Amino acid sequence: MTNIAVILSGCGHLDGAEIRESVLALTALDKAGAKVSIFAPDAEQHHVVNHLTGEETGESRNIIIEAARIARGKIAPLSELNVADFDALVMPGGFGAAKNFSDLAFKGGDCTINPAVKTIITGFFSAGKPIGAICIAPAIVVAALKGKATPTVTIGDDEDGLIKALGGTHQSCKTEQCVIDKEHKIVTTSAYMQDDARVYDVFLGIDRLVQAVMNLTK
Amino acid sequence: MTNIAVILSGCGHLDGAEIRESVLALTALDKAGAKVSIFAPDAEQHHVVNHLTGEETGESRNIIIEAARIARGKIAPLSELNVADFDALVMPGGFGAAKNFSDLAFKGGDCTINPAVKTIITGFFSAGKPIGAICIAPAIVVAALKGKATPTVTIGDDEDGLIKALGGTHQSCKTEQCVIDKEHKIVTTSAYMQDDARVYDVFLGIDRLVQAVMNLTK
Repeated sequence: MTNIAVILSGCGHLDGAEIRESVLALTALDKAGAKVSIFAPDAEQHHVVNHLTGEETGESRNIIIEAARIARGKIAPLSELNVADFDALVMPGGFGAAKNFSDLAFKGGDCTINPAVKTIITGFFSAGKPIGAICIAPAIVVAALKGKATPTVTIGDDEDGLIKALGGTHQSCKTEQCVIDKEHKIVTTSAYMQDDARVYDVFLGIDRLVQAVMNLTK
Repeated sequence: MTNIAVILSGCGHLDGAEIRESVLALTALDKAGAKVSIFAPDAEQHHVVNHLTGEETGESRNIIIEAARIARGKIAPLSELNVADFDALVMPGGFGAAKNFSDLAFKGGDCTINPAVKTIITGFFSAGKPIGAICIAPAIVVAALKGKATPTVTIGDDEDGLIKALGGTHQSCKTEQCVIDKEHKIVTTSAYMQDDARVYDVFLGIDRLVQAVMNLTK
């Protein structure tokens, strides 16, 4: 059985993991016959955003406690993720990746990646194990591998040159497709980088990403 | 185009809408070509549950603000749902249906349905428009129609006789299937009523439910 680690950055696209991408990744992984373990940092979110108004609420919420809503309680702290136990890593997107896994949302091309997240990404990469990254998560992967590799990824369109600034190569891609960098074993799909993407197209893109990740584990 | 109203009871299966069921219903509806509008009550949740520990937190959260996480902000108050604007209703499950749409979680067969939710369910039923209900939501539909109809629904297995106590007829059904009551135009699937259901089976059941609901609108 293929063991896949999924890491979540909260629960809600404006301050945590993009919920739909997370659920559709879990669905595609189950469809592909993978055994999935879910992890999240046991730490406070950067902030909490009211998803109806888009405004900060002033509350504080814990990343793993909120991500447990998506995981239905079956989730472990990121500190317990042992790369040796898994065949591949899958990272859904959402602003949580850019606010809780890094400061990308605030510093763009000059961002710093959370050390624990960076260690996990470089661990999978160095072990020759594939990484699937969705939405904005490809930018985190590129930034984490800066100086080690120049992967080719997609965040849909990259008009602002973010991926190049972070040290990668960008390839444009439609929502329902994915980009496969066989050399670096990195698979990416843009999902809700296009804010008005159709959810079934997002599923098709994630399903293709998961199939490619599974094939790269063989 | 077929217009479908989806009503959510929050964001998280222990105190709101079951997230996976909600996302997979939206995905199946998009796959089927439906135009979807999402609604939720603008009211406080019954309570907030830590989904890592299962314990109440003492916080208060608003149903529509939390449901907006699943809806990506595209959601309207339940009070704005006009039955005449839609061809069918789809209700995901989760304890939110049994705590925020009713007091079913506390009173079982003697439960009372939230008046606004009851008006919507009876409105679709009386107009001859189909209703798709997932997980525990079928129990809410049966309770809302008590005295008007005796629909046949599934909540998977009903060992405790809840559906009979509420005034309906229960039919056992596997997660990946759905039960179609053509006479009453009510379609149901058990989803996470089986706590350890596989998420892809949940999707298959919801996808079949959505196809049946779409067919019943014709």
